[in-house]
Amino acid sequence: MYSHDYLFNFTKSVFMKMGHSEEHSESIAAVFIAAELRGHPSHGMIRIREYYELWKAGRLNVTPVVRIVHESPGTAVVDGDNGAGMLAAEKSMKTAIEKARTAGTGWVATRNSNHFGIAGYYAMMALEEDMAGICLTNANPLVAPTFSVSRMMGTNPIAVAVPALHQPPFVADFATTPIARGKLAVAEKKGEKVAFGFVQDKTGRPSDDPTILKAGGSMLTLGGDRLHGSHKGYCLSAIVDIFSALFSGAGFGPFVPPSVAYLPVPEGRTGEGTGHFFGAVRIDAFRPAAEFKAAMDEWIETFRSSKPAEGQERVLIPGDPERETEKRLRKEGITLVPAIRKDLLSIAGELDIAFGN
Amino acid sequence: MYSHDYLFNFTKSVFMKMGHSEEHSESIAAVFIAAELRGHPSHGMIRIREYYELWKAGRLNVTPVVRIVHESPGTAVVDGDNGAGMLAAEKSMKTAIEKARTAGTGWVATRNSNHFGIAGYYAMMALEEDMAGICLTNANPLVAPTFSVSRMMGTNPIAVAVPALHQPPFVADFATTPIARGKLAVAEKKGEKVAFGFVQDKTGRPSDDPTILKAGGSMLTLGGDRLHGSHKGYCLSAIVDIFSALFSGAGFGPFVPPSVAYLPVPEGRTGEGTGHFFGAVRIDAFRPAAEFKAAMDEWIETFRSSKPAEGQERVLIPGDPERETEKRLRKEGITLVPAIRKDLLSIAGELDIAFGN
Repeated sequence: MYSHDYLFNFTKSVFMKMGHSEEHSESIAAVFIAAELRGHPSHGMIRIREYYELWKAGRLNVTPVVRIVHESPGTAVVDGDNGAGMLAAEKSMKTAIEKARTAGTGWVATRNSNHFGIAGYYAMMALEEDMAGICLTNANPLVAPTFSVSRMMGTNPIAVAVPALHQPPFVADFATTPIARGKLAVAEKKGEKVAFGFVQDKTGRPSDDPTILKAGGSMLTLGGDRLHGSHKGYCLSAIVDIFSALFSGAGFGPFVPPSVAYLPVPEGRTGEGTGHFFGAVRIDAFRPAAEFKAAMDEWIETFRSSKPAEGQERVLIPGDPERETEKRLRKEGITLVPAIRKDLLSIAGELDIAFGN
Repeated sequence: MYSHDYLFNFTKSVFMKMGHSEEHSESIAAVFIAAELRGHPSHGMIRIREYYELWKAGRLNVTPVVRIVHESPGTAVVDGDNGAGMLAAEKSMKTAIEKARTAGTGWVATRNSNHFGIAGYYAMMALEEDMAGICLTNANPLVAPTFSVSRMMGTNPIAVAVPALHQPPFVADFATTPIARGKLAVAEKKGEKVAFGFVQDKTGRPSDDPTILKAGGSMLTLGGDRLHGSHKGYCLSAIVDIFSALFSGAGFGPFVPPSVAYLPVPEGRTGEGTGHFFGAVRIDAFRPAAEFKAAMDEWIETFRSSKPAEGQERVLIPGDPERETEKRLRKEGITLVPAIRKDLLSIAGELDIAFGN
């Protein structure tokens, strides 16, 4: 069991040892810890290894100069200089918010970036400004379009955060696949099968084998199969890819570089690195913020009071589970599974920093 | 078999007889015919009856003054004056495009509207301006959030259109449910069951009964059940509802007025009518349009050349099926099923206009 402060300081130390500035290391560590606290350990400490290996392979710039390469009053394109995605994303979302202050809305497309942690972290940056926040990112290709067996898209998440008045904010943050890839890894470690609807084999047949990606298989889009709307999940994932990569000039679809060092950078790509897309929408560009936020309270209360299905206790609002987990983990601390503890100890040893077991 | 011109002129006559101006009637008819040509008859001629009945019930304003009630350089709120949704939507999307010309992006939230036909029609208006177009709308409540049995949301579609250079545009237009409601009606008429994953009974148990909505059942969100990601479909549908209703001041969720006259207007609503949300994103606010569109060609060609699954001929790009259908139907004409022909004849008789059988 670790306090979030302890893990924050450890993570900061790891990234500083890799050569990042103190300020950059704090920005990066904040996103790892937010993922843990919000109950998404698949995007938390387990990922430190990936950045570490990318750095060792010379594929991560630890002194990136994140810069705006094009802008208009309400839009910008940001180049992440091949640094950790958190650095490009933080600067991009701050830029979107600044643009929205004067232009009403701000939209930033980001290229030459890397994996940035959880999308919801950046969308939520807009909340305290009385803005709605939007964050999209593409990711390394694992997912097949409907009717295909080629891995053309990532799990391409969408995050949208909307402020309320007395109620907590609405925060949706979800991959455009039925499950995150991490759940396949968990099932594989446990030696379990997964439900049908998540993956297919290399010929396109439904599969319940969580190791199928290693045998030419692919993940399915939200909807699972054509009958149940997988073409809609394909549309969503494609929209995320187009806004993230085409507006910014990042690598698209099959050309998004992997976030792990053991996979090669794809050949034939015409864009640079991973792409993201950020939006900040000033509420009072549409309606007085107080009036809107009171209406959001009403929306949340109405949905929360909808009738639960038999056997269910209550109906959730997007953001409820993460907020409740964060409240608990801030008090109780964060538990790391033995394999991750061991992995972090090994990294700590190599970098000559302390990590309590 | 009817030519699209014949059906356009007939539809125009129906709406003029109801009291709409010639210009308004043409705007409305264009959307009905676009739905038919794009292979979405569920949003085509079959819907004329609904507008006609709403009008007879005194619930549709046939002389609406659609107006901008609030605006900033890049945003606006439009009031549809309780007219046909096509009129509010056309004005709103034109406003978004005008805003984008000077501000880079334009965003319009619309209230006090009604059903507007197919969302893709408005998103596609941006294409010839070298802009990406976005269109969202809420709709009358039939869909239950995850873990709930209450009908809280509509099939709330999302449409995104992105221009390419030599390739046809990318056009995604999809409900945030696995299927459209119309497919339940078709199965019911044929006396068939539907697949599991579309609807549930009043207690929340999975159902394959297409008539279950009449027995307190509800439609499910994209994903179907929690295991397969229905909470993501819930997030999507909720995002569409919030942007359509909360930014504009329209009725949200369970308070969206029905598009049919035989259902009462819900009580307790705090917003006005149906809500939509429109976006126009000028490509060159991010990248030179020619460069972007060439990259879109590459995106489309890459995805189209991905490997088909066994038994599939090819992998589609969003917009392909509709474009191919439109090409065919423009030449061959549009077939109406006997029940719809009969219905249109009956309306034509009541309004004293001609309709060939």
